[in-house]
Amino acid sequence: MSDSSDVLITPAVSARAAPGRSHRLEGLLNPRSIAFVGASERNQYSNLAMNALQRIGFDGDLHLVNRRGAPAYGRATAVDCQHIGHPVDAAYLCVPYESLLEAAEEAIGAGIRNLVVLAGGFAEVGGEGARREAELKALCDGAGVRMLGPNCLGYRNMLDRVAMGSIPFAEQHVPGSIAVVAVSGSVASFTAGYGIQLGVGFTHVIATGNEMNVSSADLVDYLVDIPEVKAIALFMESVKDTDKLAAAAERARAARKPIVVLKVGSAPATAAIAQAHTSSVVGDDRVFDAACDRLGIVRVDSFENLAVTAATLGAAGPIRKPGVAFVSISGGVSEVASDFGTQVGVSFPQFAPETREELKKVLSDLGQTHNPLDLTGAAVRDVSLWTTVPAIVSRDPAVGLTLVNWDVPSVAEPTMPETSELVGESHKGAATPLLLISNLERTVNEFGRAYMHKHGMKFSLPGVAHGMVAVSKLAWWSERLNHPAPAPYKTPETVAARPRDERETLDHLARHGVPVIPTVIARSAAEAATAAREIGGKLAMKILSPDITHKSEVGGVALNLEGPQAVEQAYDDMMRSVGAKASAARIDGVIVAPMRTGGLELLVGVARDPHWGLVMALGLGGIWVEVLNDTALRLLPADPADLVRALRSLKAAKLFDGYRGGPRADLDAVAQAAARIGEAAAELGPDLTALEVNPLFVRGDQVEALDALATYA
Amino acid sequence: MSDSSDVLITPAVSARAAPGRSHRLEGLLNPRSIAFVGASERNQYSNLAMNALQRIGFDGDLHLVNRRGAPAYGRATAVDCQHIGHPVDAAYLCVPYESLLEAAEEAIGAGIRNLVVLAGGFAEVGGEGARREAELKALCDGAGVRMLGPNCLGYRNMLDRVAMGSIPFAEQHVPGSIAVVAVSGSVASFTAGYGIQLGVGFTHVIATGNEMNVSSADLVDYLVDIPEVKAIALFMESVKDTDKLAAAAERARAARKPIVVLKVGSAPATAAIAQAHTSSVVGDDRVFDAACDRLGIVRVDSFENLAVTAATLGAAGPIRKPGVAFVSISGGVSEVASDFGTQVGVSFPQFAPETREELKKVLSDLGQTHNPLDLTGAAVRDVSLWTTVPAIVSRDPAVGLTLVNWDVPSVAEPTMPETSELVGESHKGAATPLLLISNLERTVNEFGRAYMHKHGMKFSLPGVAHGMVAVSKLAWWSERLNHPAPAPYKTPETVAARPRDERETLDHLARHGVPVIPTVIARSAAEAATAAREIGGKLAMKILSPDITHKSEVGGVALNLEGPQAVEQAYDDMMRSVGAKASAARIDGVIVAPMRTGGLELLVGVARDPHWGLVMALGLGGIWVEVLNDTALRLLPADPADLVRALRSLKAAKLFDGYRGGPRADLDAVAQAAARIGEAAAELGPDLTALEVNPLFVRGDQVEALDALATYA
Repeated sequence: MSDSSDVLITPAVSARAAPGRSHRLEGLLNPRSIAFVGASERNQYSNLAMNALQRIGFDGDLHLVNRRGAPAYGRATAVDCQHIGHPVDAAYLCVPYESLLEAAEEAIGAGIRNLVVLAGGFAEVGGEGARREAELKALCDGAGVRMLGPNCLGYRNMLDRVAMGSIPFAEQHVPGSIAVVAVSGSVASFTAGYGIQLGVGFTHVIATGNEMNVSSADLVDYLVDIPEVKAIALFMESVKDTDKLAAAAERARAARKPIVVLKVGSAPATAAIAQAHTSSVVGDDRVFDAACDRLGIVRVDSFENLAVTAATLGAAGPIRKPGVAFVSISGGVSEVASDFGTQVGVSFPQFAPETREELKKVLSDLGQTHNPLDLTGAAVRDVSLWTTVPAIVSRDPAVGLTLVNWDVPSVAEPTMPETSELVGESHKGAATPLLLISNLERTVNEFGRAYMHKHGMKFSLPGVAHGMVAVSKLAWWSERLNHPAPAPYKTPETVAARPRDERETLDHLARHGVPVIPTVIARSAAEAATAAREIGGKLAMKILSPDITHKSEVGGVALNLEGPQAVEQAYDDMMRSVGAKASAARIDGVIVAPMRTGGLELLVGVARDPHWGLVMALGLGGIWVEVLNDTALRLLPADPADLVRALRSLKAAKLFDGYRGGPRADLDAVAQAAARIGEAAAELGPDLTALEVNPLFVRGDQVEALDALATYA
Repeated sequence: MSDSSDVLITPAVSARAAPGRSHRLEGLLNPRSIAFVGASERNQYSNLAMNALQRIGFDGDLHLVNRRGAPAYGRATAVDCQHIGHPVDAAYLCVPYESLLEAAEEAIGAGIRNLVVLAGGFAEVGGEGARREAELKALCDGAGVRMLGPNCLGYRNMLDRVAMGSIPFAEQHVPGSIAVVAVSGSVASFTAGYGIQLGVGFTHVIATGNEMNVSSADLVDYLVDIPEVKAIALFMESVKDTDKLAAAAERARAARKPIVVLKVGSAPATAAIAQAHTSSVVGDDRVFDAACDRLGIVRVDSFENLAVTAATLGAAGPIRKPGVAFVSISGGVSEVASDFGTQVGVSFPQFAPETREELKKVLSDLGQTHNPLDLTGAAVRDVSLWTTVPAIVSRDPAVGLTLVNWDVPSVAEPTMPETSELVGESHKGAATPLLLISNLERTVNEFGRAYMHKHGMKFSLPGVAHGMVAVSKLAWWSERLNHPAPAPYKTPETVAARPRDERETLDHLARHGVPVIPTVIARSAAEAATAAREIGGKLAMKILSPDITHKSEVGGVALNLEGPQAVEQAYDDMMRSVGAKASAARIDGVIVAPMRTGGLELLVGVARDPHWGLVMALGLGGIWVEVLNDTALRLLPADPADLVRALRSLKAAKLFDGYRGGPRADLDAVAQAAARIGEAAAELGPDLTALEVNPLFVRGDQVEALDALATYA
């Protein structure tokens, strides 16, 4: 499948980027002078690095360093960096871990402030290795050194024609537009290799290894500003710096530059492998999903989809409407596109009457105008349909992207040359972005690249399966572009007092605008009876104690009490039961509250994730959460609109629409209350571990917190 | 990506199969003499057909027929089949639909009994076309003619070196082992083309078109008996003959020959496209899923997975245990395999202590023995790990398949030649089937085919994503091999009398061994009171009428009645309400029954699918079905073990394990009852449209039908 033909159409790399770039990583990723420490023809990694530097066309100053001063690759070498005698931007340390620290010290001593480190044997092996890495980090941080690695294959920067490190070089044949950043050099390399075979060009292919002081987030931050980079593909084990990634993602969103991520950790067993691989802590996978949702980061689940989705988003740019029109000459492919696309979330709107009218004018003998649209043999008899039909469907009011099912040719088309040319032109008459999509995965060879170049195409979707996934992600990303994450909570000037019990927690919520149930505290049976008279109707009574969290287990809950007498009796029973079952607990009395029935009970939980901070879980309370584990997660702060989306994503969301004669739940009101619960949690300060409102009662537009519990570290 | 190199290792086709084959389709698919009607160099379809015949090496008698008698392809032609002057096995009718009927009549008149028909314009266009097809069918059926098509590109049979029809010829480089049967010739062609690039050889590539009198099921039946065919890949729009497919699938199961199907219709909109494409009625997609489950047919959702899964099952054969061991030198790939594999249902058992002990002996510097297993750089330092480790993990007691993550080389491996050779040998020391799996999708070129041939490998999994799907399907299929479908219900000698109401329906169920609630029919308030005394405890009362199906809507249900007085009162109230709200209904009294509480309520529904016959839906009743649409479907008859699997597959299956202190539900008892409900439904004869037990009450091992309703066409 390799294609070693000469560059056909365009230079493999663009001219050097403007020198105006000033990011702190510019010297690391675009050095104009390099020290190559450990250069030796006997070292396979060294050979890979030298080969990459030569083939990429690095035209800066290259200084080889070899401890023994032996010539390498036909060039003289210096014995160490101090003997180079010129200022050097960056050094590639291609030495084993045993001599790494010394090599780093020498390089830093020679004034080099950017290092790429190949050697493993650091934090990823634990123990002694972790200590070695700590020492290295102290050295680098102290000297203001940016270091890629350790335990990393380095990078190649096709845009600026620089390669530092031992990622095997791969020729590409079109200008770079996609950047790949991967914790694993092997993944970076084969993902880019795969993309190249699909006709994609890469600007950067970067391995990050242990991310000691340069993280994937730093690299995203760097890449966002480079105009040639149209999309960023990430492979991650962990997010080392969530704040930095969030900030970079917001900048990417503002720049309308997609970030696509394949992050491991969805299966519990994966965490152990990642820990051993690069000492990464994969974190809670569902929280990472919530982070992606907030940040507009597209998440995929395979290497293929990483490359294809990044290339698709980079080529198409954001689309204005989520609807996709699909035009094919194959009924079978149309059907699989319809099935598979629907399954992965692609929206194929049925065409509007005006679109159907227009279609019928040109498709008189077809008789059907479904979407996906099977042109049938009509498009053999009248090849002009290949331009007219895409143009018509692209103007449909619900369509934001048009797909034409045609393989980029790999040889001169023997049977339908005219069609192939017309298909190539089809995007020019379309009112939306238009991409070709092949039947199944296929590579683009030299002939295909010439075809695409001639017709001005950037990318062709490789097959219905990968293509539909990418298109679904494109629609999602395009929509999320319009929703920047809300600003973080302000750090409270004074942390709110810790609520000591349910009532104080509810009061705290009420102060933040959360509707809470009106209750009366009673400290005797008589007071309880009085409360019953005041409130009226059916009542609930709960024990009030800072020491009891599971009230029903100690007989601390009585429901459906009617009238003062029943309440008095329940008070006495409860005191007896709680006194017996929780004899050590401080008892402050009981809470008497009106019963709420005939609505839904939601769970609104706020918890603190070690990486991403406060996270909100929304679910339908009781049996739904317990049996289905049916909750939706959002990072905080969250917009009410996002919380409505979260509620709508629950498996049992149908209950909100008014189940069995119940009123339709006012989800805007629920989301407002939930947003305020989030604010109230933030005000409780950094020691709060969780704040749970369970249930949040909802009946129509009536929303009320019935019970709440705050827990602290 | 095309590879036109000469045959490298093995003949592209095997010698002609033994002449002992005697299937009724042998003459259609393996004719020794062919009439090619419509042969003309000016016709593109004719050129494709002639090219295929020549390149495949057809060595039987070929007779060209051209209405004008003009020579074609340098050969003389006959003006029609009658003028050939030799007996002919089969004819390819490469003529437009306008002259098709005449051509078919001529061929049949000349004694030809097997036809392949290219022309469209029949049932798929409806109206006049459907009438033309009916005429054609009558002609063929009357003459005992087997016809592939119409509206079909025909087939190529690499095994016997025959091509009939206009599927573009594609060279293949390894002996055929997979058969492709597709309603669409284009799908058949590109799916096989894709497989060839992955290193797969095909025995047959067959397009079925409108399946007028030769269906996909007929072809499966034919292919099952051919020893060289190791797996059958199907692309279907509809199942034209469910009985035939079921019978063929059972024969395939007995022969341990996998059938993999991509069938369209999961999205509702797809049905309209399929109808227009080949006049196919896609049917209820969930019922087809149930059919696949019953028949051990593997269902996939993309063209890539169709080819890859068929090739995988064909190469590996059934595995004895579902556990998969995965060995890699890449942490990143191990992690993605763990995540993606787990997501699609692959089981990666953690290794047994004895396996871990053995691993530690050879992996002393690795320190971790997870599955998937990341060998890390240890396998660079000690290349023998590439054979020792796969052998060790393959002996693990939970492992039935071993995967080694390594790319089939495409060029002489420059850096790790020894490793590549050792990997190639790794399957020879394995205690299970062992397959290589690449990082991501990639083709196998001439060099790779030589490598595989040298090492005796049949197939390499192309990438983690496709590979994990295929492996998950392999485990499923291997398990389902041991569960042949139960024999169909015997046709009842006399159809059971139609139950006229709930009580008679319950009685019918009871006669078939379904436990039903004991009830008393009362025809007056006094009788109801007597019943209350007899039964005791809390009671339910329901109106008994053959005319009322929704009892509660007319006030025909009263629950939690306690004591004769309450029951008497309820009787009078019910008669008043029902008399007012359903004044025309015949009233036969009421049913008095004990209340059942504290258990689960299931829905057991039997319905008749127009294609597959009786189907059972199992679900948790009430809110679960209504909100989540949470039901599992099985074709009937079903084994109780299958019904337990169905119950376990429900989203809310956790409820069966004893929710909130309730007893654990005895699913075997539930399945027994459900199986008997199925039998009872079958006894009600072919006019029964549905029999619903709702609820089937379950509390521990107490299982009771509380209500039942039979409906008829």
